[in-house]
Amino acid sequence: MSRRTIDIELGCDSLTPISSIFKRIERWKELTGKTIEFYNFDISRNYHRLLTLIKDFEPDTVVHFAEQRAAPYSMKSSYHKRYTVNNNLSGTNNLLAAIVESQLDVHTVHLGTMGVYGYQTAGLQIPEGYLKVFVETDEGQKELDIMYPPSPGSIYHMTKTQDALLFYFYNKNDGLRITDLHQGVVWGTTTEETEMDVVLVNRFDYDGDYGTVLNRFLVQAVVGHPLTVHGTGGQTRAFIHIRDMVKCIRMAIDNPPELWSRVEIFNQATETHSVRYLAQLVSEATGAEIRYFKNPRKEALENRLTVKNEKFMRLGLNPIKLESGIMNEVIQVADKYKHRCDKSRIICTSCWCNDMEVDCQGSDSEQVN
Amino acid sequence: MSRRTIDIELGCDSLTPISSIFKRIERWKELTGKTIEFYNFDISRNYHRLLTLIKDFEPDTVVHFAEQRAAPYSMKSSYHKRYTVNNNLSGTNNLLAAIVESQLDVHTVHLGTMGVYGYQTAGLQIPEGYLKVFVETDEGQKELDIMYPPSPGSIYHMTKTQDALLFYFYNKNDGLRITDLHQGVVWGTTTEETEMDVVLVNRFDYDGDYGTVLNRFLVQAVVGHPLTVHGTGGQTRAFIHIRDMVKCIRMAIDNPPELWSRVEIFNQATETHSVRYLAQLVSEATGAEIRYFKNPRKEALENRLTVKNEKFMRLGLNPIKLESGIMNEVIQVADKYKHRCDKSRIICTSCWCNDMEVDCQGSDSEQVN
Repeated sequence: MSRRTIDIELGCDSLTPISSIFKRIERWKELTGKTIEFYNFDISRNYHRLLTLIKDFEPDTVVHFAEQRAAPYSMKSSYHKRYTVNNNLSGTNNLLAAIVESQLDVHTVHLGTMGVYGYQTAGLQIPEGYLKVFVETDEGQKELDIMYPPSPGSIYHMTKTQDALLFYFYNKNDGLRITDLHQGVVWGTTTEETEMDVVLVNRFDYDGDYGTVLNRFLVQAVVGHPLTVHGTGGQTRAFIHIRDMVKCIRMAIDNPPELWSRVEIFNQATETHSVRYLAQLVSEATGAEIRYFKNPRKEALENRLTVKNEKFMRLGLNPIKLESGIMNEVIQVADKYKHRCDKSRIICTSCWCNDMEVDCQGSDSEQVN
Repeated sequence: MSRRTIDIELGCDSLTPISSIFKRIERWKELTGKTIEFYNFDISRNYHRLLTLIKDFEPDTVVHFAEQRAAPYSMKSSYHKRYTVNNNLSGTNNLLAAIVESQLDVHTVHLGTMGVYGYQTAGLQIPEGYLKVFVETDEGQKELDIMYPPSPGSIYHMTKTQDALLFYFYNKNDGLRITDLHQGVVWGTTTEETEMDVVLVNRFDYDGDYGTVLNRFLVQAVVGHPLTVHGTGGQTRAFIHIRDMVKCIRMAIDNPPELWSRVEIFNQATETHSVRYLAQLVSEATGAEIRYFKNPRKEALENRLTVKNEKFMRLGLNPIKLESGIMNEVIQVADKYKHRCDKSRIICTSCWCNDMEVDCQGSDSEQVN
């Protein structure tokens, strides 16, 4: 629940009013009769508590979400860089070391990111984790099947590429079953489960650090703020709807890799779009104005991106696409809670390197175009 | 000085009697008139002390040796895995984050390892850090210059491959100047400087965790212990003499990469040999018996290895080779201090994964051949 603590640090709050974890679990029990057991501790700092829990609980699968998950947050300052590295790497390493020490056969499902690939991929369809390459050797050209060369664009993304090396090693040395989900940007707000009761409503982040691009645009439109595009908006990203995300995690749990086979990697994304296209889509649907800001990130102005996701498609995923009209659901949720929106938190104030400090410090007025 | 603390943990000691750091610095001052300033703190835990030191000292170069450096030690237990990951990654990240925060132009020279390449390299001459590969794209075959695909064989080696991602990111995002030295196995004991006085003598590790293979064989021969070869001895590794290692670090300091050019990577190794060949060489020189033990490591029984080191050769390195007879110097040092040798520490007791526990637990008698 570090995310709630970070709200306090940032002076932010979820657009939707989220209840305490205890109320949520209680309501879930009332509605479904099912009990979710809950233990609250920091896996990056309490190795032995984690080990004891794994030994006692004997899980088939651990779904590992316990990482600091925002790129802009990871770049706010030296403190945030160090927190992200220490928290994410110690947490993942503690989990894997504990599974080895428990001597149990536990499948780890880890939430990764499409960002591990970087976006230096012109003309290349992004494969699912591994890349076939050819190298020149003394004996002629040789084919190698390598982990996709990582190119992280933030400290947060970097920790995910370092996680991949933890997975590679524990899989190879100890035979751990591991599935890494390279997830795109999530949009949408509700699932069947969260719609059952207002107490079960999801977080909805719209701030410059944790809000993801499409959800942010929709909130901006609803509260009458211009849509904030960084750079030219030519950055192309992969997306997935929140309901598909939940289905994919279920599919990953139900389909663990064979023992002693390599780390399984799925691309958990269903479509790719440029930020500019998303802004236009939201602008057309809502009449919102689009405004261009200097980009605080070090990245290409424009990129193309095509992503393979055959594995989940083969397992029966039937993706919810942006064009399906379900975008209205997000607008409705945003509209319902717009009185909770703090407009001063909309702009990203995280500067990614020293030479940008002058350019991007929360300057509402500064525009590229 | 964590290495001295680890001696206490392992019940080991350097074969050579090393003086306290204070005595060493004092003697150096008496001999040369030069003062080495010394500050003792843990960079993985004292970020602000490190930052303050960098700001006050304004170094041109930081030579970063502050990592747990033994593969067998990193594999001894869950505790040792976690210590190695936390210490090495937090330390390196703290250093880089501090340099960025200081806003100074500091060149980082990092001691890496040839082990980041892994040894899955049949037929491939190991380049200096980067590998030219070809990939199939929609627009035909495309050439990419990628970081050499890492294949770490231990937790220790894994942290060095994760360091490489830290270097990649801070170099790309913040323009830090970084040189990573992919060092082979060091042999030899003395340098011109350490020979000036007995108080300046180097550590000489011969134990199963920290002793490197050639030095260990020489001590074993001198104390009448059989040479301990793990597996078939077909493992081929890259080597460098300690005096060349010191020269290479000096060359790296004197030749920082251009500002905003990519991370500079040198292969700091001068020859490659199989463990079996080294054992034969020492056996011939000393009459020692060779004994084969089950290998506690998960690795190929036999491998070939050819390593490029053109960059240091171009800078004028004139390598000391094994055949040069300088091996006798090591034998002399080992012989001088052999009364200090604890034979019970010679065997490696670190088991690298659960299914090996029965096979390798310090079993002096168990042999492969």
